[in-house]
This record gives sequence, structure tokens and C-alpha cells, in this order.
Amino acid sequence: MNIGTSCIAVDLGGTQLRVGHVDAGGNVLWRKAAPTANSGNPHQVLEQIRELSAGFDFSSIEGVAVAAPGPLDTISGTVSRMPTLPGWDDFPLRQAVEEFFHLPVIVENDAIAAAVGEWRFGAGSGYSNVVYLTISTGIGGGIIAGGSVVRGRRGFAGHLGHIIVDPYGDAVCSCGATGCLEALASGTALGRRAQLLAASNRDSPLHALAENSSVSARNVTEAARLGDPDALALMAEEGEFLGIGITSIIHALSPDIIVLGGGVSKGFDLFESSMRTALEGRLLSEFQAFILPAQLGDDAGLIGAASLLLNPA
Amino acid sequence: MNIGTSCIAVDLGGTQLRVGHVDAGGNVLWRKAAPTANSGNPHQVLEQIRELSAGFDFSSIEGVAVAAPGPLDTISGTVSRMPTLPGWDDFPLRQAVEEFFHLPVIVENDAIAAAVGEWRFGAGSGYSNVVYLTISTGIGGGIIAGGSVVRGRRGFAGHLGHIIVDPYGDAVCSCGATGCLEALASGTALGRRAQLLAASNRDSPLHALAENSSVSARNVTEAARLGDPDALALMAEEGEFLGIGITSIIHALSPDIIVLGGGVSKGFDLFESSMRTALEGRLLSEFQAFILPAQLGDDAGLIGAASLLLNPA
Repeated sequence: MNIGTSCIAVDLGGTQLRVGHVDAGGNVLWRKAAPTANSGNPHQVLEQIRELSAGFDFSSIEGVAVAAPGPLDTISGTVSRMPTLPGWDDFPLRQAVEEFFHLPVIVENDAIAAAVGEWRFGAGSGYSNVVYLTISTGIGGGIIAGGSVVRGRRGFAGHLGHIIVDPYGDAVCSCGATGCLEALASGTALGRRAQLLAASNRDSPLHALAENSSVSARNVTEAARLGDPDALALMAEEGEFLGIGITSIIHALSPDIIVLGGGVSKGFDLFESSMRTALEGRLLSEFQAFILPAQLGDDAGLIGAASLLLNPA
Repeated sequence: MNIGTSCIAVDLGGTQLRVGHVDAGGNVLWRKAAPTANSGNPHQVLEQIRELSAGFDFSSIEGVAVAAPGPLDTISGTVSRMPTLPGWDDFPLRQAVEEFFHLPVIVENDAIAAAVGEWRFGAGSGYSNVVYLTISTGIGGGIIAGGSVVRGRRGFAGHLGHIIVDPYGDAVCSCGATGCLEALASGTALGRRAQLLAASNRDSPLHALAENSSVSARNVTEAARLGDPDALALMAEEGEFLGIGITSIIHALSPDIIVLGGGVSKGFDLFESSMRTALEGRLLSEFQAFILPAQLGDDAGLIGAASLLLNPA
């Protein structure tokens, strides 16, 4: 089988490490995953990457593409800090991977990598102006404008979870600011709001979970699908917060399409209506953008990172 | 005198029409202005442009560059609507100017044109990632990312006056939405807030103006410079609103520099401290951007539009 140019792609998450072999057509030829080694020694993670690719012929590929969270300085190739993983502050990721594999390496913010994946091979395919939002534990983003990735100073662009949605409200973000999109609409925020509501409502199907302080965004989605009115109201509120944040994004960037990924986006049908209502009441009449769920699922980061190595954008 | 390549630049405002001869070095060789003809016939404005350039040898130039307020569809070259000027809805501006002057024509949103001017020849010179905000009657913006102008779908990107700052407050925007940056921090909004404050305070130096309902942003700046505590508080509030909006802009785009233009920016020193406090409490620690007043004043749009014709970006 002639697969043309290809590379190893790595999605380096705070909890899971995923490694795949990806070709220039965005096909994942194989993938393996393991819990990310959290010993505090980044080199142990490099060893994990080698173990996950055991037996693979590295001489047949173009290089290694790494997607990683956080403020990741993609100009210098240095991790600033890695949420949930100790020992990575100021780690020269690109250089370390190059020296380990003796191959060309690119590093990219995981949400930007996923944005590129969805733009080139997923829901954003065919458009030049694409914004990707991943709504998960936190909220991240990636921006493509005029067919180029928007990177900004130090490659930090796309931190759309920290656009301010409600500065005078009471939702404090993990970053310390009040009213960030992430503080209101992330999976963590949705779970926390559900927790509060369910703890005080004995009739809620989430009440028992709430007594253990373990209500998650996924529980809310499931309860909403079963028709629980509290859960439906929470998903409507989720849509309103997303709609307000997306209003700012559309007026700033005028994208053709906004792609929503991450775990919470699996409830797209449950928050879509209120999200669109929030947008309709705020968008200038000339503005419009398609808003669609992501198509590549967990592979978006692998596919996008590989694509950036094989065809820079 | 050999001026190299040059063009005629037009800044088509709702109240004032400005025409200038601009060279590739960003020099305005001459300029003339007149109140914009508001008869409802756009062709009368084309005649005005010819009158303002009377005696000028159009055969010596590369073309005509027009900056106009938006939403201006710069892909098709068509005005969507023109604030304060009747008769311009869906007017094919680029085509009409081409047919009138028989020269190559580009049209650009006036705030994007000013952004390009400040990026190439003003406060943003030397940087690749620049955001320009004009704070005037309304608030407009322009974005340069990685050395390219961000235009987005239909060229509508940069409408930063309509990013949402306080959706659950009580400031309704001229666009109909609540809590747009423009509704809180434009010159119009600043004047309106001052009006309310001064009308109820007999000791205010703006009280007499307030009784005539004619307090302007400029009055506030002047009173603040004279030490009036109400005016100083209003300028501090102005800085807070700008700081919140700029937080969203920096997290989304990671610009190297944000340039503030328009009339309200003349009070930069009066709102700078509270703006920086608002940013410091909200920006992720890795993010920073220079924030500086514009340098080209009223010429920014002429210079930027000309520059886009002579050297596309």
C-alpha cells in the first residue's frame, strides 16, 4: 500500500496520550493511547510515545507532529505550562522531540490543531474562514482566516474560552477572572450549575449524584434527553452563554462557519435552539455563519497536527 | 519630484468626504475635504471626489482607493448600508468608482483601512499582529494577523464595537443588542453617561450643557483635564469597559499591539490606568500586548486605503 507522505501525530493531553500514524489525506492509519505519564518528567512521555509506536518504521515518515494543551509558544516550541501535568513548565517541547526522534517536528496548540483538522477534513471543509470551539473540561479554540491559521504573538491566538461574557456576574473562572466563556459554558461549569440545582431538588434525577458532589456535564445531557426539565433548562442556559460568546466571535472575525467540538458539543441538539435565539437577538443583520458540530471527534487533533506538518498553513 | 507609485485615496464618511493624493511611502501629498453630499444620490459623491481633485492628473496614478463605513462587502465591492447617508443601500461602490474614473479601484472598510495605515506607517509599525480600535461616535476595528489583513466572510471582520461586554446590563446599543462594547464605550455612550450624571449634579461643570442635553465625550475629556471628579470617574469607567473588551480581543487574537484611534482616544491618558487595571485582573499570565494611541490621526484611513491599493495585504 502506497500511502504517500505521512507522519506520526501525538495528542499530548493532561490525562491521555494518543499517538497515531496519519497520512496527507487526513486518514488515521493506526492509533494507540495510554494514560499520560505524570511522573513530572517530560522525557518519560517521550518514551511512552516510542512504546506506543513500537515496531513502527520511523524512517518511512516525514516527521512528528505534536498537539499539546495550554499556552504553548509555537514560535519557540516551548510549553508555557501544562494543566494537570507537573514538570512541564517552560519545557522546550519541539527541541526535545526532535532530539529524541531525529526527525522534523512541529508543535501546535491542541485546539488549533483540532481546528485545522476540522477545517481541512471535517465540518469546516471547503471554507476559508473557520472558527473551532472545543467545549470540554475547559473551552479552547482555533481560528482560520483567509485560509491561514491565526497564531498571533507566541502562537497564543484562539484562547476563546477566555473571552469575557459576563464580567459583572458571579461565575469565577479557573484563570481568576469573572465571566469568561469557560467559566459559564465549559463542561465543568455546566456540571457545577447542575450540581447546585440538583442538590436542592429532591425530585431531580440528578439528586443522588448531587449528594455525592459528582454531577457532570454528561449527566446533564443524559437527564435532558430523558426530559428532565431542570436539565433542559440548564442546556438552554448553556446555549445562551455560547450564543453570547459566539456573537463576539462572529463580529470580530466574520467566519463562514463555527465548528463546535468537545464533549459538551454532543448535546448540540439540546442547546442549539437557545444558542440561535441568543445570536439572532445580537448579530448585525449582515452577519451570519454556519454553526455545526464537529465531525472528527477525538481524532481532530491528531489529524490537524499531522496536516500542519505535511502541509503548513 | 519623483514620488514613485501613488494613488488617490478617498475617506467617505457619513458627514465628511476626504480626498487625498498618497504615495507608496504613506505620505499624503495633498488632501481636501467637504461635507459629504447627502442628497441620496451616490453619484453626486463621485462628482464631489472629482471636484475635490480638480486639476489633478489622474493619468499619473495607479488607481483610486476608497475607505467607507461598514458593513461594506469588500469581496463584491458593495456597500451594505451607510450610516447617516440615505440612498446607499446595496450600492455597487467599487464598480461605480471604476466606471467613473476608468482606473483600478479598491474599496475597504474605513476602520480596516485605518488599521492598515497604523500598522504600516503608524503606531503598529514593525509588528505582524495588530488590532486597531477606533473609538468615536461608534466603535470600529481592524485586525492584522501574521502580516495579513483579516477580512472574513464578505470582508466583514473587525466589527469589534459589537463584541459583547455586558449582556445583562442596561446599555442598549444602536444595533439593538444589549452590552456591546460600542454601547458602553463609544463617544456617544460616554456623552450619554455624562449627560445623566451632570443633569443631576448642580455642581458639575457640565450641568449647563446637560440642561441642553448636549454633553459630548469631548466635554467629558475637557472637564476631566480640569480635575472634575465626575468626569474623572467617567473616564475611569470608560477605561474599565475598554479593558474588558480588549481582554476578549487579546485572548482571541494574541496581538503584539493594540492601537486606539478615534476622538475618544485623545483622552488615552485619562482612561489608561483603569483600562490596564481591568486587563491585569483578567489576562492569562502569558498574554501581553502593547496598547498605544494611534499616530496618524484623521489621515489613517486615507493612508491605509492607498497602501492597500499600492501593496495589497
